[in-house]
Amino acid sequence: MYKLVLVRHGQSTWNQENRFTGWTDVDLSERGVKEACEAGKTLKEKGFQFRYAYTSLLTRAIKTLNYMLEELDLLWIPVEKTWRLNEKHYGFLQGLNKTEMVDKYGAEQVQLWRRSFDVQPPAIPADDPHHPRFDPRYADLTEAGSQPGTESLLDTVNRIVPYWQSNISAMLKKHGEVLVAAHGNSLRGIIKYLKNISENDIVGFNMPTGIPYVFEFDNNMNLIKDYFLADPKILQKLIDEVANQTKK
Amino acid sequence: MYKLVLVRHGQSTWNQENRFTGWTDVDLSERGVKEACEAGKTLKEKGFQFRYAYTSLLTRAIKTLNYMLEELDLLWIPVEKTWRLNEKHYGFLQGLNKTEMVDKYGAEQVQLWRRSFDVQPPAIPADDPHHPRFDPRYADLTEAGSQPGTESLLDTVNRIVPYWQSNISAMLKKHGEVLVAAHGNSLRGIIKYLKNISENDIVGFNMPTGIPYVFEFDNNMNLIKDYFLADPKILQKLIDEVANQTKK
Repeated sequence: MYKLVLVRHGQSTWNQENRFTGWTDVDLSERGVKEACEAGKTLKEKGFQFRYAYTSLLTRAIKTLNYMLEELDLLWIPVEKTWRLNEKHYGFLQGLNKTEMVDKYGAEQVQLWRRSFDVQPPAIPADDPHHPRFDPRYADLTEAGSQPGTESLLDTVNRIVPYWQSNISAMLKKHGEVLVAAHGNSLRGIIKYLKNISENDIVGFNMPTGIPYVFEFDNNMNLIKDYFLADPKILQKLIDEVANQTKK
Repeated sequence: MYKLVLVRHGQSTWNQENRFTGWTDVDLSERGVKEACEAGKTLKEKGFQFRYAYTSLLTRAIKTLNYMLEELDLLWIPVEKTWRLNEKHYGFLQGLNKTEMVDKYGAEQVQLWRRSFDVQPPAIPADDPHHPRFDPRYADLTEAGSQPGTESLLDTVNRIVPYWQSNISAMLKKHGEVLVAAHGNSLRGIIKYLKNISENDIVGFNMPTGIPYVFEFDNNMNLIKDYFLADPKILQKLIDEVANQTKK
């Protein structure tokens, strides 16, 4: 039996301000820190013994992982950090407030940018100082897609699925229990692949922050079942909160 | 030009209580957290741009590294954790208070266990639940010396030097600036090797906690100079503090 646990990072300071974040490297809010510690406590109570962990190159996911590992007394396990687990790059929307965008461009257009499967928001220019190619964490990367100016959810899925196939699934097979702390859209990519969810349905799937999502596999790595480690009522409240971020 | 920075973890709860720690996995004290953050701020001020970091399998060193990386905005760099950077294993002394030991065995014997180069304190028995072979972080290791019941400083030097030669020095050559957060005795091993310090002299060398120790190398990896990033008076005070731990 193999167990994969996916956790979306706790609330960030920009989640709190309702701004598009993407690859912008903002910190966790106080609530986000608390959510991460709570997730770690829940996993400890359930007896998880992770031997390998993954996270993105973004501080809010890395810190979420570190807080969980500290609660689990597992700070010592190997951690692999990869741009492939980064949030979707939101192009020129990054830094803008979601309700302001709705006022300016209309709810439909913003929803399309946020939640359509293959539409990219307009890119930030290649000479913009916020472009990933000027950021030391991406500057030396040579893999296709590692310095995007924008991304669709399709782009995000296309960069995370090969990493699951070549890397995370192998470590899961080797170590039995693996923990991944990442972002709404990179986790959507993994979930879409594992549960064979359609393009239409995955855009409607809202991952709550800080709630461990467990996937159990049999010895042949077939998915047996998946479930959140949370009270169903609390879970629905958190999911609704994410879904309603652009409502006024 | 290559720059290696060694940092001994900030004060732990057992440093505070003056107890032999070794491989016991105790947390940082409040002062230790502050020391780690201060070290990170100093390194940031000096413009360090680490691209790779090392630490031990012990929480107090890992957290020291994480606090420094957070101050440096470098949580995203790869971190390698190894038992070879662990503190010296103090055998049956682990957990005992240093001044109580002096009362019981005399200052000379305790100083010998603490600071002789090749004398091991008596080992903890192989069936003791605190033996490393029962700890999940070491249980699966197969390398010689990775599950010790006790160690001399010689043993500690002998496990860290090959790791420096095969691993850390290669990453330094590749990445230019490398950060190591570890422990008094594993760092002594590296320092002894780099500065070709005699067995007699290395036991008298006291590494202060939380003060970055910089080693600069030329293009052929010859050591050019080494210095602490601290005011000389503060530095001497910290060194004396470590040296006087068994005095009453």
